[in-house]
Amino acid sequence: MTNRNITIKDVAKQANVSVATVSRVINGLDRVSESTRKRVLKIIQELNFVPNNMAASMVNKKTNMISVVVPEIQNPFYTAVIEGTVEVAKREGFFTLVLSTNGDEGEEEEFLDSFLGKNVDGIILIGSHKEAEFYREIQKPTILVDRYFNDSGHDGVMIDNYRGAYEATKHFIEYGHERIAIIDGAHDFNDGKDRFWGYKQAMLEHGFTPDPTYHKQGNWTEEDGYKFAKELLQSHQPPTAIFAANNVLCKGTIRAIRDMNLKLGEDISLIGFDENELAQFVQPQVTVVRRPTREMGEQAAEMLIHKIKGGQLEPSKPKKVILDVELMKCGSVKKLN
Amino acid sequence: MTNRNITIKDVAKQANVSVATVSRVINGLDRVSESTRKRVLKIIQELNFVPNNMAASMVNKKTNMISVVVPEIQNPFYTAVIEGTVEVAKREGFFTLVLSTNGDEGEEEEFLDSFLGKNVDGIILIGSHKEAEFYREIQKPTILVDRYFNDSGHDGVMIDNYRGAYEATKHFIEYGHERIAIIDGAHDFNDGKDRFWGYKQAMLEHGFTPDPTYHKQGNWTEEDGYKFAKELLQSHQPPTAIFAANNVLCKGTIRAIRDMNLKLGEDISLIGFDENELAQFVQPQVTVVRRPTREMGEQAAEMLIHKIKGGQLEPSKPKKVILDVELMKCGSVKKLN
Repeated sequence: MTNRNITIKDVAKQANVSVATVSRVINGLDRVSESTRKRVLKIIQELNFVPNNMAASMVNKKTNMISVVVPEIQNPFYTAVIEGTVEVAKREGFFTLVLSTNGDEGEEEEFLDSFLGKNVDGIILIGSHKEAEFYREIQKPTILVDRYFNDSGHDGVMIDNYRGAYEATKHFIEYGHERIAIIDGAHDFNDGKDRFWGYKQAMLEHGFTPDPTYHKQGNWTEEDGYKFAKELLQSHQPPTAIFAANNVLCKGTIRAIRDMNLKLGEDISLIGFDENELAQFVQPQVTVVRRPTREMGEQAAEMLIHKIKGGQLEPSKPKKVILDVELMKCGSVKKLN
Repeated sequence: MTNRNITIKDVAKQANVSVATVSRVINGLDRVSESTRKRVLKIIQELNFVPNNMAASMVNKKTNMISVVVPEIQNPFYTAVIEGTVEVAKREGFFTLVLSTNGDEGEEEEFLDSFLGKNVDGIILIGSHKEAEFYREIQKPTILVDRYFNDSGHDGVMIDNYRGAYEATKHFIEYGHERIAIIDGAHDFNDGKDRFWGYKQAMLEHGFTPDPTYHKQGNWTEEDGYKFAKELLQSHQPPTAIFAANNVLCKGTIRAIRDMNLKLGEDISLIGFDENELAQFVQPQVTVVRRPTREMGEQAAEMLIHKIKGGQLEPSKPKKVILDVELMKCGSVKKLN
């Protein structure tokens, strides 16, 4: 976090003018030449300086704006969370501003340090930073969604990723599958980690040792879903079942199965995590772990606004709200026993 | 537009305190009792009053924030426009704030009147209002995207909806189709209107009178695409070709064709407007009118930031940038001749 300690003096020094001049510029008074005004404004921007009077008045005045910060908006999971947030916020008289960070830690940080980031009443954050420390430094009401960090000091709304993956894998096993593959991405956050552990634990508990060649780990993208599914299906001893650990990996897998002219639920069984359009379109439909995406946004917005309205009360211990997942059984898992 | 003329005096009067007291509250000074402070803040919020000093400093200070206002974020067209905007804005050092209005005129207006709406440097607007007058009142740099209003006084970035629909319909005709249906939604904006006129004009120019029973008009939703496609295909004399005038209508049509066990490109020909996931997934793939969605956002952001950086220069005549569309011929149109 930069620029927290920039004062009007720093601006004056850098612009080579008096503090009074900077003040006149900030307050929109005349008696400042146009060139000086421009120079001061440039410095203010460069230093990302938030004038005190503005800061002070903002401290006292609620802006009735909250921000929802997400890594991207092309994945329907994020837009569903946003929609849930917007709905509750609107009902409570708040605007919701959406910021997409491209999963970039720098952009996330820059936003929180910006004029706006400092002046929204609260933040719903699907973070890109990987350490609790970053989150701990956020001073305003914040709810972490989906990705959580213990010791962050903030409340969180998550789902039970572990249980979702566990139930999916157990379902395969109960239907007689043993060669069960998992396609996932980096384990940067709790969600990916927990899904993998749910898979692994279900295997171990049922007496199977997960075969590392059946764990395909890349990026959480449709391309990697496609690529890894093909690799698995073309391998010497292909799995009979694939668990695709998010919605886009599942879409890629569906495409690969189609392109290889395999029959879903017959030649290869599949379970995805999160609903997606292709999973619902193909026949048989794909069994997925469904989570309440929109509800995650609603829940987070309710908690955030409750906090905001409660004002600067003594913070209680951070609480995590875990929403439940559900295995939606469709026809994509073949019964082998 | 309300509250434009609210002054500190109005706040003082309503809160039954002196102007000096309101000023002290705004500036975060003490010597104001807690109950008075709360009352004043409440009135400030109710009246949506933006303190002058803040307004003044904001007038002089660029916030380096632009806002992109869209009717919804679940449709991939809007998220693509947003992504294009964000990319260019970021490169130019601007934050992009996304606001989804649910296609509600009131929400759109409320945002533009809000503290934030007044303080972003510029706006990229896919508007929900249907009259030029509303847009004319927006005082800050604004680029209208997709939906345009002559006499709005703002620049616009659009695509050639007319030509896209014309080319699609002409393609059907050249392949020997005569019974060509169109599924669309309300003609509230230029896009819907122009697509219908493109269809109609192509029919007329080739000597066909469009049959009103082949024009199914409802909402721009997947459900209506599904419903109308079924109605058309179950009718006494079904069309041989359907033009689905946006991406979600096309998806609904694809589902209807699938559920009726008809063979796409054989039993029924289909062209959609805008790419969509199902159109790319089914085999044969669906011929669509493709428009440069992400580029629309990029173009709009470039124009907007150019305007912002140019400062308060004398506005030139509003200009419209029309991006080109392309008919992506896949296998969903049967050759009848």
